[in-house]
Amino acid sequence: MDSKMEEKDFLACCGSKKFAEEMTSSGPFANLDHAIDVARDIWFNKVDVNGWLEAFAAHPQIGQNPSAKHPSDTSAQWSKGEQSTALQTATDSSLQELSDWNARYWKKFGFVFLICASGRTASEILAELKRRYPNRPIVEFEIAAQEQMKVTELRLAKLFSTQVKAASISTQ
Amino acid sequence: MDSKMEEKDFLACCGSKKFAEEMTSSGPFANLDHAIDVARDIWFNKVDVNGWLEAFAAHPQIGQNPSAKHPSDTSAQWSKGEQSTALQTATDSSLQELSDWNARYWKKFGFVFLICASGRTASEILAELKRRYPNRPIVEFEIAAQEQMKVTELRLAKLFSTQVKAASISTQ
Repeated sequence: MDSKMEEKDFLACCGSKKFAEEMTSSGPFANLDHAIDVARDIWFNKVDVNGWLEAFAAHPQIGQNPSAKHPSDTSAQWSKGEQSTALQTATDSSLQELSDWNARYWKKFGFVFLICASGRTASEILAELKRRYPNRPIVEFEIAAQEQMKVTELRLAKLFSTQVKAASISTQ
Repeated sequence: MDSKMEEKDFLACCGSKKFAEEMTSSGPFANLDHAIDVARDIWFNKVDVNGWLEAFAAHPQIGQNPSAKHPSDTSAQWSKGEQSTALQTATDSSLQELSDWNARYWKKFGFVFLICASGRTASEILAELKRRYPNRPIVEFEIAAQEQMKVTELRLAKLFSTQVKAASISTQ
């Protein structure tokens, strides 16, 4: 597969500049599995803790409109899709409770509550936030990085499927 | 013991503002052991990862003059004392090698190489730097936080001994 993926595409998958640069210089990738293997190695072994914080900062607060926060339209659109189950199952009061707990979480940990929201209801997300809140900051930091990796994998899959579609149209 | 310890004293022990604030509001302490117990709880359970990075940033690079970097005279003076064995055992070439490896370390991890240098020779410190260098960023982040705590404990001991001396002079 002759990939046309650019740094901005990888940055929409994960908001660490180092991650995006390393993915760009590591490509093109034979397939999605190959890209995910490389992405995991870069994220967990090469991106430093400042890069993790940079990637976390690119996420909207769960339950909030992502467009204001997100660095790219692609990322904002994907984030909206990932949160669609949560938004469909949310009530005004559960959104309020989520917002209150997000604020408490931010105050304790200094970064946004990060969860791979895809397919999860608002109450599942809230329960998970409450369960993780007592964690030590360093423990929560590593859990957030694992959640970021899940989000990145889903987005890489979307990126590959878009590329395959584009390639099949251009060769018709 | 009626402690006269202020926020700036605790900030000289550990450069996280949150740490210094929480120590100040938790005092006065009955004795050094009490202060260390509270300090460990604050550092590992309450200071977030941004606070860890803030504390790391207050340290000079091992083998370098601390005064330019350090936020307080007390901290600079303590840092010099902690590194006295290293500086006495260092040669020009070992200082150069330490400087080169410090730069590599910074490039990989995004924060200064942190070690409780007290009583360690330059070559011991260099060996430890090389041993830790292959670590994953998150692993190294937690080791650095443990080293910071060792430094903090030594400095709290100095702070208490200064206070006891001052108290004994004022009551004579």
